[in-house]
Amino acid sequence: MTGLFAGTFARGGASAAVSDDAWIRALLQAEAALARAAASAGVVPATAADAVTAACADPSRLDLATVVARAADAGNPVPPLVRALQDAVGERDAVAVHVGATSQDVLDTALVLLARSAVQAVDADLAAAAERCAGLARAHRDDVVMGRTLMQQALPTTFGLKAAGWLAGLDGARLRLAEVVATLPVQYGGAVGTLAASSGAGVAVREALAAELGLVAPAVPWFTVRLPVADLAGALGAAAGVVATVALDVVLLAQSEVAEVAEVGEGRGGSSAMPHKRNPVAAVSARACARRAPGLVATLLGAMEQEHERAAGAWHSEWPTLTDLLVAVGSAAAWLAESLRGLRPDVDRMAATVAAAGEGSLAGALAEALAPSLGRGAAHDAAADAVREARESGRPLAGVVAARTDVDAAAVLAAAAPDTGEAGAQVDAALAEHDRLTEGERG
Amino acid sequence: MTGLFAGTFARGGASAAVSDDAWIRALLQAEAALARAAASAGVVPATAADAVTAACADPSRLDLATVVARAADAGNPVPPLVRALQDAVGERDAVAVHVGATSQDVLDTALVLLARSAVQAVDADLAAAAERCAGLARAHRDDVVMGRTLMQQALPTTFGLKAAGWLAGLDGARLRLAEVVATLPVQYGGAVGTLAASSGAGVAVREALAAELGLVAPAVPWFTVRLPVADLAGALGAAAGVVATVALDVVLLAQSEVAEVAEVGEGRGGSSAMPHKRNPVAAVSARACARRAPGLVATLLGAMEQEHERAAGAWHSEWPTLTDLLVAVGSAAAWLAESLRGLRPDVDRMAATVAAAGEGSLAGALAEALAPSLGRGAAHDAAADAVREARESGRPLAGVVAARTDVDAAAVLAAAAPDTGEAGAQVDAALAEHDRLTEGERG
Amino acid sequence: MTGLFAGTFARGGASAAVSDDAWIRALLQAEAALARAAASAGVVPATAADAVTAACADPSRLDLATVVARAADAGNPVPPLVRALQDAVGERDAVAVHVGATSQDVLDTALVLLARSAVQAVDADLAAAAERCAGLARAHRDDVVMGRTLMQQALPTTFGLKAAGWLAGLDGARLRLAEVVATLPVQYGGAVGTLAASSGAGVAVREALAAELGLVAPAVPWFTVRLPVADLAGALGAAAGVVATVALDVVLLAQSEVAEVAEVGEGRGGSSAMPHKRNPVAAVSARACARRAPGLVATLLGAMEQEHERAAGAWHSEWPTLTDLLVAVGSAAAWLAESLRGLRPDVDRMAATVAAAGEGSLAGALAEALAPSLGRGAAHDAAADAVREARESGRPLAGVVAARTDVDAAAVLAAAAPDTGEAGAQVDAALAEHDRLTEGERG
Amino acid sequence: MTGLFAGTFARGGASAAVSDDAWIRALLQAEAALARAAASAGVVPATAADAVTAACADPSRLDLATVVARAADAGNPVPPLVRALQDAVGERDAVAVHVGATSQDVLDTALVLLARSAVQAVDADLAAAAERCAGLARAHRDDVVMGRTLMQQALPTTFGLKAAGWLAGLDGARLRLAEVVATLPVQYGGAVGTLAASSGAGVAVREALAAELGLVAPAVPWFTVRLPVADLAGALGAAAGVVATVALDVVLLAQSEVAEVAEVGEGRGGSSAMPHKRNPVAAVSARACARRAPGLVATLLGAMEQEHERAAGAWHSEWPTLTDLLVAVGSAAAWLAESLRGLRPDVDRMAATVAAAGEGSLAGALAEALAPSLGRGAAHDAAADAVREARESGRPLAGVVAARTDVDAAAVLAAAAPDTGEAGAQVDAALAEHDRLTEGERG
Repeated sequence: MTGLFAGTFARGGASAAVSDDAWIRALLQAEAALARAAASAGVVPATAADAVTAACADPSRLDLATVVARAADAGNPVPPLVRALQDAVGERDAVAVHVGATSQDVLDTALVLLARSAVQAVDADLAAAAERCAGLARAHRDDVVMGRTLMQQALPTTFGLKAAGWLAGLDGARLRLAEVVATLPVQYGGAVGTLAASSGAGVAVREALAAELGLVAPAVPWFTVRLPVADLAGALGAAAGVVATVALDVVLLAQSEVAEVAEVGEGRGGSSAMPHKRNPVAAVSARACARRAPGLVATLLGAMEQEHERAAGAWHSEWPTLTDLLVAVGSAAAWLAESLRGLRPDVDRMAATVAAAGEGSLAGALAEALAPSLGRGAAHDAAADAVREARESGRPLAGVVAARTDVDAAAVLAAAAPDTGEAGAQVDAALAEHDRLTEGERG
Repeated sequence: MTGLFAGTFARGGASAAVSDDAWIRALLQAEAALARAAASAGVVPATAADAVTAACADPSRLDLATVVARAADAGNPVPPLVRALQDAVGERDAVAVHVGATSQDVLDTALVLLARSAVQAVDADLAAAAERCAGLARAHRDDVVMGRTLMQQALPTTFGLKAAGWLAGLDGARLRLAEVVATLPVQYGGAVGTLAASSGAGVAVREALAAELGLVAPAVPWFTVRLPVADLAGALGAAAGVVATVALDVVLLAQSEVAEVAEVGEGRGGSSAMPHKRNPVAAVSARACARRAPGLVATLLGAMEQEHERAAGAWHSEWPTLTDLLVAVGSAAAWLAESLRGLRPDVDRMAATVAAAGEGSLAGALAEALAPSLGRGAAHDAAADAVREARESGRPLAGVVAARTDVDAAAVLAAAAPDTGEAGAQVDAALAEHDRLTEGERG
Repeated sequence: MTGLFAGTFARGGASAAVSDDAWIRALLQAEAALARAAASAGVVPATAADAVTAACADPSRLDLATVVARAADAGNPVPPLVRALQDAVGERDAVAVHVGATSQDVLDTALVLLARSAVQAVDADLAAAAERCAGLARAHRDDVVMGRTLMQQALPTTFGLKAAGWLAGLDGARLRLAEVVATLPVQYGGAVGTLAASSGAGVAVREALAAELGLVAPAVPWFTVRLPVADLAGALGAAAGVVATVALDVVLLAQSEVAEVAEVGEGRGGSSAMPHKRNPVAAVSARACARRAPGLVATLLGAMEQEHERAAGAWHSEWPTLTDLLVAVGSAAAWLAESLRGLRPDVDRMAATVAAAGEGSLAGALAEALAPSLGRGAAHDAAADAVREARESGRPLAGVVAARTDVDAAAVLAAAAPDTGEAGAQVDAALAEHDRLTEGERG
Repeated sequence: MTGLFAGTFARGGASAAVSDDAWIRALLQAEAALARAAASAGVVPATAADAVTAACADPSRLDLATVVARAADAGNPVPPLVRALQDAVGERDAVAVHVGATSQDVLDTALVLLARSAVQAVDADLAAAAERCAGLARAHRDDVVMGRTLMQQALPTTFGLKAAGWLAGLDGARLRLAEVVATLPVQYGGAVGTLAASSGAGVAVREALAAELGLVAPAVPWFTVRLPVADLAGALGAAAGVVATVALDVVLLAQSEVAEVAEVGEGRGGSSAMPHKRNPVAAVSARACARRAPGLVATLLGAMEQEHERAAGAWHSEWPTLTDLLVAVGSAAAWLAESLRGLRPDVDRMAATVAAAGEGSLAGALAEALAPSLGRGAAHDAAADAVREARESGRPLAGVVAARTDVDAAAVLAAAAPDTGEAGAQVDAALAEHDRLTEGERG
């Protein structure tokens, strides 16, 4: 999607990484690497491979209009691309074009290359979001916020622990993507997987091709055993889920009635009917993009049922689905990074909510402290008076208590203070894990 | 998707019907109709409404680049579009722009208009495919073909009945789409659905707007009650399923080992590694496109859970998902129409398969017929001889039997003839229903 | 699911309607009706049909343990059931068992019968929920509530209009289910759809069978053209979406910070760690159940791609999927009905939120009213004083204004009153539509 | 599902591993381990922990009927289970029940334990299927079979390579499941994740709990960051896809017209209308079960969007969905193992198909060989005569050629022999990988 909705649904770098241009480049990268691999295995002359590499490096030499025009009739763009490449290098060097390969060899390999580069773009935005979460966790390690379960106020936690939870999710999603990328295989089997057109050097060519492209060389082709696609789908779906849960928290915390965070961005958030409103547009858009993922993952998993040596439809359905998934998850990650970049936590409001919820315990602690001097009955009345005074003056009860001189006010406040248990230690542990994970990156 | 894969995945008219240009036109169509509706309800001067209508009819007067640039930050393209429209008509007539409306009023109405026109494009290809099935059912009403269950040969049926089943499915899918289109509602509620900014004439404006656009006027806004989207999703998903099942039959019947149909198209079906192969590319592509539908439908159904008066993400997720669904189903229908247009049934091959499977019964019938004259034992031997003769000569047993003069060969063949029961009557009934359905269209 | 989670995920009547017992009854209902239909078409003796009907009416006469034991090996339970039925009626009357039918005839017909009765159970709970919404819409026709878009406070609407929106959705979902049920077809085609084993009276038997069961008689079998299943899936998925959006509103309105509704139920809502909490368990459970629907719908739509005359797997996958879908949507509807039954709207809290959000306009209206007598500057200061007084005293500004004698307080309050536009008229329209829809039911 | 369809859809061990009994056991296992962990961290007396462990080991001591009765109202079964456990151990030892925990701590941990044991059951069937594939790959390493792409005959490959592809997929699926199981984390955070009720020893308790159960101890709770569930979903979905693709191959190869494999099982494959038919019921059932997976995976991924510290519905939706997914994939794997166990490849038929497709090249080779002696024209005629002779005699051309003495028949046959390239070497490589993978298991 380019244009009207691209700003929302084709955000971040993944969209460019799966564009038509990127597809052409990836297909040619696969063909060039194959030529070199065939040369290194002694199947074709190095000069011919060089010629093919040169042609692949300069798409302007190819008749791409014809490739586009004939792709659908051929079932996929590789047959016309091979012809264009043969034309470009001339008859002598054409021997190094598409050596021993079938269309699926090149298309699958290109898909893998494309996915790898798109995942890098997705990961950059996930990393930015994670870094921001780490910053929030560090900065708000001990700032109380109301914990909420089933959307009801429960007990206090810290905003640092909330952010550490987000961080752990984003780091986990990144880890999974990295693991998948590290295992992406090259495809090379020839017409039906036997490598029969590879002059007896097919396995060697496959290994050289994998080395050329930094991919894994599988023992057998994966023409209809689509685990690499399923792996990408699973890891991208998981990443979308993490992004969605963080974005949902932002949207819920930004509700007018909660107002514990605000999303600040230049020019964002307008409303045609209500100019006074501030919408958390980035978090909302992150949710919108992430919601597209599960259905796309299901389509890819459903398409794993592929027949014989090349599937009649299920294979083809992967191309738009996987690229849409990459763009959807990439856009979601990009929006989340923007949302978190502009996130303004209101720690006073958070603390006030916790304090308001804790006024009952505070009144109890005050009565407890007054009992030795006043007797239990009078102490209880005095505490009730303090609650009334606070309500009427519009001040928090804590302020009223703090002003008292007839008790050790600090001790009373401490006794009723929100207990955030081992929140801090857990924040530290999550940050330490994050540091370990990102060490290599920064190195 | 434009370009490299568009020929496969953006086939047929639906793709153009949901393009960026089409979106802009639909948004402006909604705004223009709203201006006229407001005028007809006496809320704004007719002259102002005319000015808005004129501006909407000529998008070149609008600063669309700015609309595109600001759409994402606004959360949707309507706020900047409204501003562009106000600028285009000038301060005096701006009073008739976006009267009493919120962004969702215009965006939902545009989505409905867009979907209606895209469904028309989808329907045109479904109708072409159905017409071809009707032709096949009529032409092959009594041509036997092997019926297959769980992919095993079972008993004979007719190719006419097979085609009549396809026809009933395609007609049914068309009927469902037509029913949904007939109930598509306008959206008009203002900021939160009360019509508070419509000068007390909101309900009247809504009705006038619906009349202007040929849509239904609902009793209340459907901002977060998304039945119209679910209806479109359901009917499109069902259409995809019918297309897929027909395409699958084509692919299976076209298998080399079955070869009861071939798909003939110009230039289609090449293979980079196996130039001798003929692939049923259109049917394969129809399957590939149709496979995208279920996941997209699930995304739309999952997005029905929308909050309060306007959803924070789920609403937005409908735009790319519904348009992708329209394009996927439209492309599938277009490919199926092409596949069926080029479908060449091989009725001799079909009959031969049925005959081969029936050789057992034919031998039995021969023995039965010879028994009165030869006695049961000799008759059995004679029948076995006939079977051997047929095998050795490579002729079908039916030919060998037909050449015999010692029995009433015609009677023997008739006794062992494949029984296709009431296939013909059912074909006639399906064709009659099809005629009823399409009568209005041809009228 | 029976037991531990059944109270949550197998709620309402749909679960019983698709139990094993219900399946057996539906299969026998189909066989009995088929026997009678065959008799009415003159294919078998009426006495034999009566014997079959009698056996089907008393499952205890059948060896069901063997049926269960052999179902999986047969691929479906019909072959062993037919044998059990033949054994039960004896050799003479066995002629009326399963006349001209294939397993799929009986299984599909039973599935349709089962679905029809489960949908009735689902519909009963949807109707109860709708009735409660109608009551809320009527009772709160004019009670203001804050309208919220993208989870931000926007402008006031009425709780009546909110409930009317829910009502329209639930009524719409019921309408769709009713339309689907009214078109459910019988299945009857014999081994491969030709009716070849129906003694030339197959079409007549099909029509009699449909009449017996109150189902539609299709022109051709729908063995692999699964529109009826897709229709059920689509309508159930839509119903789940409506239930989910209402339940989400309940959960959001019940948030501690919003607290505009509470869900009151006996014994529900406890928490093992936080005994003081009240969770809206019914609405939460409704959401949980409804969430299962989209994936199940996608599975059914994906299973529409069925091959030849009987599918090798896709057909079978419908059984657990459609029954799970019926149970999931039925449970969601049952929970929603419970949630709404116990829903306690807090109209004072709603009004207070609206008033608080409107204090800006109220202060403006006060200044405006004071300006003629005090002059613009002093009037502005007096309004600011009133705001301060309200805040310090903890009273709403409206109370402070109402107590003033220096202005026409009623007029000032009216000028700043929340404008709910045509909310009331729309509520009335939705209720009128609801009355039309339910007229027949009550009749 | 128990009963009528259980033989089909609740096959293998996974179903028992997620039964109600198994759930109760897993919940009690989690509670017992928590008691011991709390004791080991010094939070509760060891004697109390022992008492809890003893009670958990004997569910008959608990009032489970009340647990089941109250589970739905409580939102989940843990609150009533905790009460039952407290009742069972008595007031003194109740201090060691559910120490510092919230319901989700125990439920999530139990879910993980349940999933781990169900995955073991799934894996056992995947392993059996893989072992059979390894056997097929070894036995048929060099047996030719026609390779088919887009369901058209393409070029020859070997049945060994086909089986090696299946093997690589099944091994890959097993590997992914093992990786996921190895990273499954314990859940322990208390009400909102702070461990505030764990006496300052919460992190220590979490680590002890993880050690008790052989699970990973995460840095922070994963209450609403559901990567472990996503991981299970992804790996199970991938496994289903591999099973489906193998089962589809079996079904396609078993088609009457192909007949290159048959599935032999006792008592399986009957048809109520066509007793002569043999259906590949196990492969068909494997497909049916596997088809359920993608939609369930999508539901789990969609449910990752969870709010705050505990989700209001999405969390709950995981329980039936994940267990259904485990059962579906487990059943699919069990059926595939049965299908492959009974698989009978017909290598003669495979070879004949390859030979028939290669008759063109064989005739060419014969003409080529005869040309030196006969001249090109006569050689061509002689080759055509040989083809005619083969057809008329019903023998394969290879037999006719082999019988000739006027050429070096062996050389001619070799020249036209199907070229299966490096199929054998690839089979060996896949088997070697399989051996490496399973070495530890056999050890």
